[in-house]
Amino acid sequence: MSWRINGQKTAIVLVDVQERLCAAVAGAERILARIDRLLEIGKLFSIPVHLTELAPQRFGPISSPILQKLGEGGSRSARNVLSAGSALPKELPQFLLVAGMETHAAVRQAIYDLRERGHAVYLLADAVGSRNACDHQVALDEMRQDRIVVTTLEAAAYELGAEADEPLWDRLLPPLS
Amino acid sequence: MSWRINGQKTAIVLVDVQERLCAAVAGAERILARIDRLLEIGKLFSIPVHLTELAPQRFGPISSPILQKLGEGGSRSARNVLSAGSALPKELPQFLLVAGMETHAAVRQAIYDLRERGHAVYLLADAVGSRNACDHQVALDEMRQDRIVVTTLEAAAYELGAEADEPLWDRLLPPLS
Amino acid sequence: MSWRINGQKTAIVLVDVQERLCAAVAGAERILARIDRLLEIGKLFSIPVHLTELAPQRFGPISSPILQKLGEGGSRSARNVLSAGSALPKELPQFLLVAGMETHAAVRQAIYDLRERGHAVYLLADAVGSRNACDHQVALDEMRQDRIVVTTLEAAAYELGAEADEPLWDRLLPPLS
Amino acid sequence: MSWRINGQKTAIVLVDVQERLCAAVAGAERILARIDRLLEIGKLFSIPVHLTELAPQRFGPISSPILQKLGEGGSRSARNVLSAGSALPKELPQFLLVAGMETHAAVRQAIYDLRERGHAVYLLADAVGSRNACDHQVALDEMRQDRIVVTTLEAAAYELGAEADEPLWDRLLPPLS
Repeated sequence: MSWRINGQKTAIVLVDVQERLCAAVAGAERILARIDRLLEIGKLFSIPVHLTELAPQRFGPISSPILQKLGEGGSRSARNVLSAGSALPKELPQFLLVAGMETHAAVRQAIYDLRERGHAVYLLADAVGSRNACDHQVALDEMRQDRIVVTTLEAAAYELGAEADEPLWDRLLPPLS
Repeated sequence: MSWRINGQKTAIVLVDVQERLCAAVAGAERILARIDRLLEIGKLFSIPVHLTELAPQRFGPISSPILQKLGEGGSRSARNVLSAGSALPKELPQFLLVAGMETHAAVRQAIYDLRERGHAVYLLADAVGSRNACDHQVALDEMRQDRIVVTTLEAAAYELGAEADEPLWDRLLPPLS
Repeated sequence: MSWRINGQKTAIVLVDVQERLCAAVAGAERILARIDRLLEIGKLFSIPVHLTELAPQRFGPISSPILQKLGEGGSRSARNVLSAGSALPKELPQFLLVAGMETHAAVRQAIYDLRERGHAVYLLADAVGSRNACDHQVALDEMRQDRIVVTTLEAAAYELGAEADEPLWDRLLPPLS
Repeated sequence: MSWRINGQKTAIVLVDVQERLCAAVAGAERILARIDRLLEIGKLFSIPVHLTELAPQRFGPISSPILQKLGEGGSRSARNVLSAGSALPKELPQFLLVAGMETHAAVRQAIYDLRERGHAVYLLADAVGSRNACDHQVALDEMRQDRIVVTTLEAAAYELGAEADEPLWDRLLPPLS
């Protein structure tokens, strides 16, 4: 499978990163930290961000640190059915970096829907989660077997910055101690 | 692989959930709780249930909480050979959600037999088990590699309810604390 | 992948179950117990056994409990090169159940060699081992990805006895407590 | 997938085994010990070694025990972009044993680049690493799913020495206690 990501044809899709879900998902703090880093890396490469939102009256608003980070940026689609697929905008770019929650539910459904629409989807395994670890792990294994690219935030960042010069590194790479 | 499940063409197959097997299988309590939830979700979508039963004189009757839950519902097939394949009814619907025990024995054999008969089989990894964890895990890995869909109960529930409206959610989704 | 094993066209291949290797391999006691059980099941179905042996002056004789179990039974091939492939007899049956040590070395090489010769090979994951757990696990994952059937002793036993009547079960199945 | 390695058409590629990276990578001590052993085995079969080096002013020089082991041997390519692919020499042999760091970054990129150039690449899972275990593991799983051969140092050594006579074994195999 071809693996090089063209940053100019890429978007970030954040699935249902909502406050009541964050309170229930295992390891949500780590996931939110990864998403924060993802948004920083997205800014480096001017990558647009799209957020999905499921029934906020039930699952709460989108996590406020994420909204603060985005400021005026980012587009949003809300919905009142579980599956995110039909609510996603039609005009997304070819490459999609997907993060959010829950891995086995709305994330998994968005991933398959987006691939059926012809996108190259990259699931960031360290930036997604479920309430139960078993749901999370089995869903990752299912998608990997179905040839979805299951990768991590840093591996995707190295793809985006593969040919970047050293001046960008300080913002792209974590500092070595 | 196409992944959306059509609830109107779906049945649940419960393999050998019998009392003496339950007493021996690792994590049987959790598996029975998952099967209980599976039967509730099945009721929401009017999904028929088929139970298999291996030599009850030896392996005991079907677990009584399951029989109570089913009441008059559910069809059954008993057998006196290990493999469940030949005892399963001929007229099952296209999509099958499979749970029960043991993962590496009768479940695995039923899965392969049903697929050879043309069914789309979904193995619910959190609702199956074996006496030994190694048998369970190696069998899941073998089936996944053979492109059986290995998923979890909740992921399947989200498929069935992908386009459901909010009124159904209270019965479909677990409550958020 | 077709999965039903025809016991009348099956042999057991035990790779290098030699005393000095057994002393070094992780979990050798459990592996030897599984091999003992494998030989009992083989007897039930009159399955022939072939043993390979690598440089006994260096790696020791074949484990004595196994030799006692086999009595006059079993054929053997010794060799003084690492790879077992060329030393295996030409006339093996179609289906081969493979156990022994080490998973990542002589077992792995025998598996690939035998498949290249057209055999349907079944690697019994709970009856093989390496000195280091990482070598063992990575080799299992590599073979599974290459579509070798990686299964367990009990799963194979259920295949052999899929249509067996109840009288055979007491000798085929472990007792339920 | 064909698996036998022809030692006369093989090279070792060591990716960015540099001091500041070694200080940050999980399990670097074990990885360096494996690489030391890899270089010894390479000498047995007269296998050339190529080292890559990323911005030494930032990531430090190549680990000194490795340089001492190589002495005058080994070729090197330095670079100032993250991806190692374009900096690798054009004339590498068909089979490549790859080790180094980080698994999910420069190693992963070199592996895919080299395969696109037509090489048979063998990733030595016990001789690569990342700072974070999750990055390492997800990258190994991604590459395995993409049919990169993910193996271990010892498994590769058994391939190289598959037909070797006993005199070589003392240098090829670890001593049995």
